[in-house]
Amino acid sequence: MAVYTNLGAEDLARLIEQFDVGTLTSAKGIAEGVSNSNWLIETTGKDGSGARFILTMYEFRIDITELPFFLGLLDHLAAKGCPVPATIHDRAGQSWRMMGDKALALIEFLPGVSVSAPTADQARAVGAALAQMHLAAADFAGTRANGMGPEEWQRLLDECGHDGLAAIDAGLAPLVTRELAALNASWPGDLPRGTIHADLFPDNVLMLGTSVTGLIDFYFACTDMLAYDVAVTHAAWCFDASGRNFDADVSGALLEGYESVRPLLAQERAAMPLLARGAALRFLMTRAWDWLNTPADALVTRKDPLAFARRLEFYADPANAALFL
Amino acid sequence: MAVYTNLGAEDLARLIEQFDVGTLTSAKGIAEGVSNSNWLIETTGKDGSGARFILTMYEFRIDITELPFFLGLLDHLAAKGCPVPATIHDRAGQSWRMMGDKALALIEFLPGVSVSAPTADQARAVGAALAQMHLAAADFAGTRANGMGPEEWQRLLDECGHDGLAAIDAGLAPLVTRELAALNASWPGDLPRGTIHADLFPDNVLMLGTSVTGLIDFYFACTDMLAYDVAVTHAAWCFDASGRNFDADVSGALLEGYESVRPLLAQERAAMPLLARGAALRFLMTRAWDWLNTPADALVTRKDPLAFARRLEFYADPANAALFL
Repeated sequence: MAVYTNLGAEDLARLIEQFDVGTLTSAKGIAEGVSNSNWLIETTGKDGSGARFILTMYEFRIDITELPFFLGLLDHLAAKGCPVPATIHDRAGQSWRMMGDKALALIEFLPGVSVSAPTADQARAVGAALAQMHLAAADFAGTRANGMGPEEWQRLLDECGHDGLAAIDAGLAPLVTRELAALNASWPGDLPRGTIHADLFPDNVLMLGTSVTGLIDFYFACTDMLAYDVAVTHAAWCFDASGRNFDADVSGALLEGYESVRPLLAQERAAMPLLARGAALRFLMTRAWDWLNTPADALVTRKDPLAFARRLEFYADPANAALFL
Repeated sequence: MAVYTNLGAEDLARLIEQFDVGTLTSAKGIAEGVSNSNWLIETTGKDGSGARFILTMYEFRIDITELPFFLGLLDHLAAKGCPVPATIHDRAGQSWRMMGDKALALIEFLPGVSVSAPTADQARAVGAALAQMHLAAADFAGTRANGMGPEEWQRLLDECGHDGLAAIDAGLAPLVTRELAALNASWPGDLPRGTIHADLFPDNVLMLGTSVTGLIDFYFACTDMLAYDVAVTHAAWCFDASGRNFDADVSGALLEGYESVRPLLAQERAAMPLLARGAALRFLMTRAWDWLNTPADALVTRKDPLAFARRLEFYADPANAALFL
């Protein structure tokens, strides 16, 4: 969470002139996004009554050639009534612009706040919004490989090394090695696929009360199994931050909400425990890599990999497979 | 610029309930403030038509016993029509609240952006706003010693050490030693005093075009010579960031704007070159200290002390004293 690039008011004003949104009246760098800089922008609006936007500058990780996928997806979903921010196209009709060597996009501001301790009703609404997104994306033409799938987990393990994992926790290397072997042996290949969010943590959902007002931060979105997205969302919403406490009510409501819009197929349901182990391993591995490659005194907060090791152990326990039945 | 404390949506919603401002609809951590965390807050507003605020959590440097001075000053100035954000009092009438061991204040959101390259017309407006503030504060009852005055410059020099300054630039220690001696020998003691902002850089002024819409960040405000505040503002506005290029038009307009509201006395005018040397030395010393005490790889940007060494040399040159006549 940072603003990596300082954009002066004059630069911002000139940029905003490229859009039909009135003139700039306020710009605050906001502390969101780990791989881009974001500003909350206010303008006079088309009709003078004021309007707000998020301006995103893509700093790291994002390959500019992938912007048409990410931004096209937002426009596709918004047009279908999903609660996602539409992009604002510039006067030339483009959804993003270059400023020097950085790409910038102006997107809709959506109200809502990200909850810290979701209730069952909130999880139900999120499940339904995820399923709505899956259905709405069915005819989206774009595709993008999941760069955070099983091959990447192996690559991250190789980079961390068993010694690296052992430095975090003695039990981590055996757990990861065992799970990665098990998942590679039986990772499903025949489940319904489509465009998935792949990172739908509470931070990436805006809510007002129990209503979802925004699904945001689609920069891990890709083409993969829909049920895997359910598994990621389950791992993200149904535990406290430490991963020690599972909330069965939130879990039940999340799945119920999803199935109220898109019922899971029998084979998806059967695969859920395995997919959930994969989801837990995915965040375990990226957090472990970040842990080993972020200085302890950096201003960026390191997220505890063990919070996902605990989830992984939870999902790997056969006694918990019944959750998804 | 950072958000040091993570406040969950639930905590924020409960906090906002303590004010008569409607219910929380959005909260974005904003990248402003080096010693506090700030959020741009939106609520439904008293009448349901929406309202915006800045929520500030005081993290460092600020002594809570000084909050009545800072926040009382904002309310005093706002009531007199100065473009400063008024504080929002809670339902119990308080202008700040505690949450755990942190103090929080909700203040008015003001439109406007901070300019990077001020024009003469913008500087004229800022000069006038500064003078308006000085007059409006004349009957403000609060007082606060200037903790960034000549004794502090000496203390910072002692902490940096001549070797520390030499590590930044070979010419720095002789310059600082010479100037500090000269300023201590003749620092004025008999000029009109009052409440000053003491840090009115372009970052701390919000503007729309050539109008000042907000003077913000009063956390260095104190009781000191009014003309010293003019000198600080002059040093802050009349040079490019490097301190190499002085803009005579901006300088003339800034002073003209100030004097259009509050003409300088003859003795203030005569003291201006000395006060400007003091202002340059103040920022030189705090930047030098920060430079020597901030890791080069920290995410916080270190500001170049030499940008103020150059200003100091400019103001110490007798040929430039005529600027203030």
